[in-house]
Amino acid sequence: MKFSDLAMSLKASEIRELLKLTTMPEVISFAGGLPAPELFPLEEMKKVDVEILAKEGQAAVQYGTTEGYNPLREKIAARMKQAFQVDCKAEEIIITSGSQQGLSMLAQIFLNKDDVVLVESPTYLGAINAFKLSFPKFIEVPTDDKGIIPEALEKILAENDRVRMMYVIPEFQNPTGITWPLERRKAVMDIVNKYDFPIIEDDPYGELRYDGDVVPSLKSMDTKGNVIFLGSFSKIFMPGLRIGWMVANPEIIDKMVKLKQAIDLQSSSFAQRQASFFIDMFDLDAHVAKIKALYAKRRTLMCDSMKEYFPEGVTYTFPEGGLFTWVTLPEGMDAKEIMPKVLAKNVAYVPGGPFYPNGGNANHFRLNYSNMPEDRIVEGIKRLAEVLKEEMAK
Amino acid sequence: MKFSDLAMSLKASEIRELLKLTTMPEVISFAGGLPAPELFPLEEMKKVDVEILAKEGQAAVQYGTTEGYNPLREKIAARMKQAFQVDCKAEEIIITSGSQQGLSMLAQIFLNKDDVVLVESPTYLGAINAFKLSFPKFIEVPTDDKGIIPEALEKILAENDRVRMMYVIPEFQNPTGITWPLERRKAVMDIVNKYDFPIIEDDPYGELRYDGDVVPSLKSMDTKGNVIFLGSFSKIFMPGLRIGWMVANPEIIDKMVKLKQAIDLQSSSFAQRQASFFIDMFDLDAHVAKIKALYAKRRTLMCDSMKEYFPEGVTYTFPEGGLFTWVTLPEGMDAKEIMPKVLAKNVAYVPGGPFYPNGGNANHFRLNYSNMPEDRIVEGIKRLAEVLKEEMAK
Repeated sequence: MKFSDLAMSLKASEIRELLKLTTMPEVISFAGGLPAPELFPLEEMKKVDVEILAKEGQAAVQYGTTEGYNPLREKIAARMKQAFQVDCKAEEIIITSGSQQGLSMLAQIFLNKDDVVLVESPTYLGAINAFKLSFPKFIEVPTDDKGIIPEALEKILAENDRVRMMYVIPEFQNPTGITWPLERRKAVMDIVNKYDFPIIEDDPYGELRYDGDVVPSLKSMDTKGNVIFLGSFSKIFMPGLRIGWMVANPEIIDKMVKLKQAIDLQSSSFAQRQASFFIDMFDLDAHVAKIKALYAKRRTLMCDSMKEYFPEGVTYTFPEGGLFTWVTLPEGMDAKEIMPKVLAKNVAYVPGGPFYPNGGNANHFRLNYSNMPEDRIVEGIKRLAEVLKEEMAK
Repeated sequence: MKFSDLAMSLKASEIRELLKLTTMPEVISFAGGLPAPELFPLEEMKKVDVEILAKEGQAAVQYGTTEGYNPLREKIAARMKQAFQVDCKAEEIIITSGSQQGLSMLAQIFLNKDDVVLVESPTYLGAINAFKLSFPKFIEVPTDDKGIIPEALEKILAENDRVRMMYVIPEFQNPTGITWPLERRKAVMDIVNKYDFPIIEDDPYGELRYDGDVVPSLKSMDTKGNVIFLGSFSKIFMPGLRIGWMVANPEIIDKMVKLKQAIDLQSSSFAQRQASFFIDMFDLDAHVAKIKALYAKRRTLMCDSMKEYFPEGVTYTFPEGGLFTWVTLPEGMDAKEIMPKVLAKNVAYVPGGPFYPNGGNANHFRLNYSNMPEDRIVEGIKRLAEVLKEEMAK
């Protein structure tokens, strides 16, 4: 049987493989990006599901339009204004099966083989895997603790004429937890507008800010239709519905709709209504506030524990929001090599190397703090610290 | 803004554009492939949804595995035996977001640019659009009223060394309604096994047989792992959930899982459980029996009405199952050109041309009989007959 070049290039995502570990109850997993399940509004969902069938009946389970369920698109447009300072209409929004689908579709509509995609260094592993299906070249834009370095970006653009899109997570970045301050965002947008190319702003955690002031989204500064915003209900509501959205200029939305017709027709009619009816019947803002309170506590606890137990020479970020902190080991250490010893103590993280599309940078790992209860966070960090001390003593 | 070659090649699906018309209540639409909404088991679903949340709670809305919800895969394996004579294990099954996603993913894993895909002539429009994303060459295998002609298939294979897959709908074909008899299936499988290449058996309507005896599926005759079977809950349960499945050899399933990780992580956790719990709590066979009784009546009524009202020289198929009949106008007539006159009478069909990937064959159209109530079927055929008579009198 002959497979395509694409099929031969496929590797399993390391995150997804690691997620399999998290199903074993004895593992203290800091690996995945799973929300805290105890906050899922299950009692409310019982009422939501009954109301959907009572009120919409057949339409809730029949074929629907590719663009998505209109009342949900309207509600997202309103939320874009409230939470992300973006003025947009429902027609500028397409519902996707999670942001992951948005990422793979954007690669399809922007990238030919060997075209260049710019990413933060490091960047989200799932985006790398989605983009790779189009066989692009990745250029990692150098970053500091404020995000992408504008001068470095401009230099790359001046030297490359095959840049077709840039992918960034300016808010509580995955994997680093870093947030770009306003001045940095403005500087990057000036460059994007000067060179006029699409920039994907992936913002699944934007509403989960625990400290500091809100910073306007890139999309809110977009005067030329260059910013494509990806949002998701996975982290503020429930990931298993697989409902995300994209806000983009009409030309891009038109391409996305035609592409989605060919790849899966539409996202689940019922799941779209689950999100939409919940917003109607309950208070999503109050729900988000509950999530923030819990995750803020866990974030602080994890960072405090690392401060207390991690050996000298290991550093980590203190994120103002989102789900992840990023740990840096001394040069020369390899987080992937240490991994089996960590797993032997029933603790899991994601090694940092795969977050760099062009390789290297083995001395990092990513920790998630949203999914484990407080006592297991402390216990997990203690065990991790023991392994790190042993390794660093070698 | 520069788009990819793929983006520049995108056209809206004519079926999906026509589906927009069906939302206007005054239109008698024979265009889409929509199930009869009055048969959706809504009261049962209220109980199903409550039970899912009561019994599975958090897991029902959390991230799940890419392969799909295991209890559903187990139930599908059992159903493959009962309805399609196929022995398979849950591990040979991946859940997809409808069969449409299976089609686009198969094109991705089998087709490089300019590779050859074989299809029946005519074939399902949605498959053509999914495959086109990989820029293949289509070779239409000649068919008669028993499906693909084995001698024609063998000749094509002997002359072409870039055939990478074949796509067929042997049961109540879309668009023609034709079913391949056993001898024809055996002859095609002999050729497939001789040349050893993947054949996709798309069978969304297989359980909806109204007359005649069950014919074994191609997958049930598959001794070498060449057949990839696509099934769906859209036509026997509810399409809005977007839950389909693929049965294939482990090597193919492994590629599919890795690809699905990159394109959308997984299908909706909750929607998968809706199908699975319904099968547990209610009688899917009894539900399918109700659907069959209604569609058989509508099929017969539509064909009887065509017999009574259509002018001499117009022919149509009498399908033993499924959702569609295929109408052939005299040579030289163009169903797409007549379409505006039909729409002016508030009737819709799908012109036949787009079902031929290499063009031509304008003198056909496809009629769906599952979605309209009986009185509107008769009225719609009458109006259609008037237009045809006028056109043929020119």
